[in-house]
Amino acid sequence: MATHDGEIERRLAELGVELDETPLDNGRFLRAQRAGDLVYTSGSVSSRGDAIYKGRIGRDLSIEDGRAAARVSAIRCLEGIRALIGDLDNVVQIIKLVGIVNGDDDFSAPHEVVHGATDFLVEVFGPRGQHARTTFVGRPPSNHAVEIELVVQVKGETEV
Amino acid sequence: MATHDGEIERRLAELGVELDETPLDNGRFLRAQRAGDLVYTSGSVSSRGDAIYKGRIGRDLSIEDGRAAARVSAIRCLEGIRALIGDLDNVVQIIKLVGIVNGDDDFSAPHEVVHGATDFLVEVFGPRGQHARTTFVGRPPSNHAVEIELVVQVKGETEV
Amino acid sequence: MATHDGEIERRLAELGVELDETPLDNGRFLRAQRAGDLVYTSGSVSSRGDAIYKGRIGRDLSIEDGRAAARVSAIRCLEGIRALIGDLDNVVQIIKLVGIVNGDDDFSAPHEVVHGATDFLVEVFGPRGQHARTTFVGRPPSNHAVEIELVVQVKGETEV
Repeated sequence: MATHDGEIERRLAELGVELDETPLDNGRFLRAQRAGDLVYTSGSVSSRGDAIYKGRIGRDLSIEDGRAAARVSAIRCLEGIRALIGDLDNVVQIIKLVGIVNGDDDFSAPHEVVHGATDFLVEVFGPRGQHARTTFVGRPPSNHAVEIELVVQVKGETEV
Repeated sequence: MATHDGEIERRLAELGVELDETPLDNGRFLRAQRAGDLVYTSGSVSSRGDAIYKGRIGRDLSIEDGRAAARVSAIRCLEGIRALIGDLDNVVQIIKLVGIVNGDDDFSAPHEVVHGATDFLVEVFGPRGQHARTTFVGRPPSNHAVEIELVVQVKGETEV
Repeated sequence: MATHDGEIERRLAELGVELDETPLDNGRFLRAQRAGDLVYTSGSVSSRGDAIYKGRIGRDLSIEDGRAAARVSAIRCLEGIRALIGDLDNVVQIIKLVGIVNGDDDFSAPHEVVHGATDFLVEVFGPRGQHARTTFVGRPPSNHAVEIELVVQVKGETEV
């Protein structure tokens, strides 16, 4: 088991976040996959331990709930990236975030919900966390409130 | 016309799949486009020859239907990639899959539907088929049941 | 302030389009971000100056309205790319376009709407504008009619 004592892990601890060790392979697909210096995560839904955010924003959940859900999804993305590359200090830049928000039929503020993921990533990575972003209302798996995927630039190269 | 007798084509034949020759340019956009060693496919919908899957999962179609639809979409992605790079043996790794599933208003299992594409790609490519994945419920073009897009790493480089 | 007098800017002027200077950082996330020779834009919605396209195609807006909306979104993507790389002549290739269309519950022609963005990019960039493409019906931020994101290959490399 790797020890996780780098700069980003310390910063996460300051924010009260301890990442879980998760297998890269969930039995069917991978939590993250790499091409050269780009890592693509799977869409990560808003459940982690006791923090389970399901339902539609505007009907079952508030925008504040949604921001907390987006943060949970972002944490799960980082767990997937760590399972692949081992050390989050090797993240060069968060490049792109896509956020899918489960909304009531008239809900139209997915961007306000996804701020919960964006702000968290910038808190953790600083300027290296600043990304381009797409958000829309759709329906994530298992009626989760939020689903987040990332494209991240990392150090080094895969062997092909 | 290229001959298609490589390892991946033989594997496809074992699985009862013969890819169609399709033009790369559908008259308006491309079935696939390349940047360096990454190939991005267009979103491919679930119609191919007599296999036409339209409608919403949970209302018009079952999850089993949906998995068959997802497999059809994945096959069409491979046709697009082959139209671009010529030989699927040049695929180094399937990196990322996005699956959009047409669902009834209460349908919430897009992941179970998209397994039909994921499992097919791993059957064809083995470990080179293992990818990160995002699925959600949305509405693909022309009321198709499923739409799949891929990011794939391939050998070689484009000339810029 | 950069002067914008390159080939692509002249072509845009011929088409009656003058890009606005926009900050790369919108205060929370970036309009575009770069990894190596790939630029990822944020999802850009269909409002620009007096051209504001909100509502659902098939209910509030026609397909023709939707095409105009998609063109507006594409223009905003180009503004984001220019804010990042300075000169659109450094675009090597438009690689991928994702188009999210706000549609009535029975609307099923997102592809016909997104032609408004695809055709515009080919008008501007010629063969360098030809891209792979995914379209679906979903709900963009603030009830906009269309949201477009691009992946674009550009000249040169970032310093890491």
